[in-house]
Amino acid sequence: MTSTLFRGGSITTWADEPATALVLEDGLVVSHDEQPCDEVVELDGRCVVPGFVDSHTHLVFGGDRTAEFESRMAGIPYAAGGIRTTVAATRAASTEELASRARRLADECLRSGTTTIEVKSGYGLTVEDERRLLEVARGITSHTTFLGAHVPDGDGYVDLVTGPMLDACAPLATAVDAFCEEGAFDVDQCREVLSAGRARGLAVHLHANQLRPGGGVRLAAELGALSADHCTHVSDEDITAMRDARVAAVLVPAAEFSTRSPYAPARRLLDAAVTVALATDCNPGTSFTTSMPFVIALAVRELRLTPLEALRAATLGGATALAVDAGHLRVGAHADLVVLDAPSPAHLAYRPGVDLVAQVWRGGTLVSGPAARSRCR
Amino acid sequence: MTSTLFRGGSITTWADEPATALVLEDGLVVSHDEQPCDEVVELDGRCVVPGFVDSHTHLVFGGDRTAEFESRMAGIPYAAGGIRTTVAATRAASTEELASRARRLADECLRSGTTTIEVKSGYGLTVEDERRLLEVARGITSHTTFLGAHVPDGDGYVDLVTGPMLDACAPLATAVDAFCEEGAFDVDQCREVLSAGRARGLAVHLHANQLRPGGGVRLAAELGALSADHCTHVSDEDITAMRDARVAAVLVPAAEFSTRSPYAPARRLLDAAVTVALATDCNPGTSFTTSMPFVIALAVRELRLTPLEALRAATLGGATALAVDAGHLRVGAHADLVVLDAPSPAHLAYRPGVDLVAQVWRGGTLVSGPAARSRCR
Repeated sequence: MTSTLFRGGSITTWADEPATALVLEDGLVVSHDEQPCDEVVELDGRCVVPGFVDSHTHLVFGGDRTAEFESRMAGIPYAAGGIRTTVAATRAASTEELASRARRLADECLRSGTTTIEVKSGYGLTVEDERRLLEVARGITSHTTFLGAHVPDGDGYVDLVTGPMLDACAPLATAVDAFCEEGAFDVDQCREVLSAGRARGLAVHLHANQLRPGGGVRLAAELGALSADHCTHVSDEDITAMRDARVAAVLVPAAEFSTRSPYAPARRLLDAAVTVALATDCNPGTSFTTSMPFVIALAVRELRLTPLEALRAATLGGATALAVDAGHLRVGAHADLVVLDAPSPAHLAYRPGVDLVAQVWRGGTLVSGPAARSRCR
Repeated sequence: MTSTLFRGGSITTWADEPATALVLEDGLVVSHDEQPCDEVVELDGRCVVPGFVDSHTHLVFGGDRTAEFESRMAGIPYAAGGIRTTVAATRAASTEELASRARRLADECLRSGTTTIEVKSGYGLTVEDERRLLEVARGITSHTTFLGAHVPDGDGYVDLVTGPMLDACAPLATAVDAFCEEGAFDVDQCREVLSAGRARGLAVHLHANQLRPGGGVRLAAELGALSADHCTHVSDEDITAMRDARVAAVLVPAAEFSTRSPYAPARRLLDAAVTVALATDCNPGTSFTTSMPFVIALAVRELRLTPLEALRAATLGGATALAVDAGHLRVGAHADLVVLDAPSPAHLAYRPGVDLVAQVWRGGTLVSGPAARSRCR
């Protein structure tokens, strides 16, 4: 297979030693030092960062919630019930329609530098609809999460989720998730759903403490979840529990931006040595963005991360939340990377809203952006 | 010349009657109704909006202030003195270097949908340096503003600005501007500079009330300025003065984003019937973005404009602040427009950080984005 050398710009790998160059071969990073290669990408002062890992998205859905967004921006607060609008539209959509839209959004993610993505179900809420959402999700990514417990849908719904729905969905999912919130599911119901999923070998995530304080984060710690997501309203005890149980905090500031909600206490989490991941939470109700660069800029402005902390959270942090070997460019890593049209990754925050993603490489192959390479042997 | 028909999607023109289609000919909008044309752009549900009018930028500069941005994000507040870093780097740069960088940024503006742009001098602060900044600016736009009074540079500086510097710069500028702020110029100094510029036939803008309350906005009203820019700290009396003197408020929320400053009271201005314009304030110190879509998203989230109010401020509002016939697509308008990959302009705020600009047309010609047109006669 072709070997490719990147040289002439700053390269962030998250290895202990700085990289002077980057060499890819057979889809992997094989060296941080310049060596003869089949082709060369001259960075000319641009920088390379690991591909973004978006560890929390709801990419598969039908319908539109522009009007809800507009009325919320005019002053009507977000309520979990808005999800039902999307559920109705998703059920009405054909699987082909769902897949084509999800594919378009996934392409958007890729063009903005996301090379690893998690996708949840949760807008079906019937056995058949949840199953087909996960089928669509599997067409996009290998990180699929069963979120049948997104909002309750009638009597005995938890039994449905832990019974026939889980039976149908577990084979298509790598993780299970639930929305632990007033108006969604309480702690005991979430424990039931997540334990049932875990018993089927699924990893555990939990939407926790988004709209108000509660027991969600501590439940995530109790169950050994990979991540507690949102974490807007967390106590010191919650934070200690997350740290001790090694639960990553997946923060989604774009949702807080688009719902005009308070931002999560990222500094308290980081200062307590909790792993922080940044994700888009891409969904039509509360965060209709696919842009990890935008999330990074928000994290610096609003969550008070440094630009490097934000980049780490958007790459390595996301990989930790998904328990996947990604989000870094150490020797041996999958060659998933982004060439930024900027001298340093700080520009992702310094230049908000500007599309700096010049090239995206996945598994050692250029998948987005113009090919500007020279052959050299 | 070729005629072009846009059909099959929502079209925002700011005319009183809704447009069912858009017809361009000889660089102008000639009809809002479908008619036979040489070529057709099928919108397929996408929408058309007027090209953005960015009425406040500092695109011509040398050097880099990434480190200052990073330290500010770590907690060090913005002070006007930071401008001096850019002044030193700008003076050291060749005119070619300045022009090539400004051109790159102007291209970035165009790709994100800005079809009319204002560019200020202000990083030279010597007769020769201010003159060459305006020369570079003229290579980009016909809306060039002499901002010799950006920060004071030694004894007798105001005399220099109103004397030989104005002599050298007035022929290259369409407007004069000053930075009215503690650490920059006081109200009397600004009055002197702006009056001298006005006497040479230049239109008047003023950086006013950015960092604290003061007499800047009232001075702008007194002098019949086109705009008072920033307006973060304004009293009810200031607002009344602006309304009565028809001074537009140019708001720059991206600067407030990147300096972690309070946002301007846009609703109070709008509710008092002051014309509000949105601009990027693109500059390396406080707002290094060229993206009007980002500014629109911020205006909806932080300034509490509705998506349509924000779009109007980013198009017609900017045109009012520059006293130019642009920012609309009424019959007879210059055919400067953007095709958004979205069903409605609300998506500019609903989908923050996502590049929705599919095509940019200026003067009836496609200048950015893939050509997807069919010939039809």
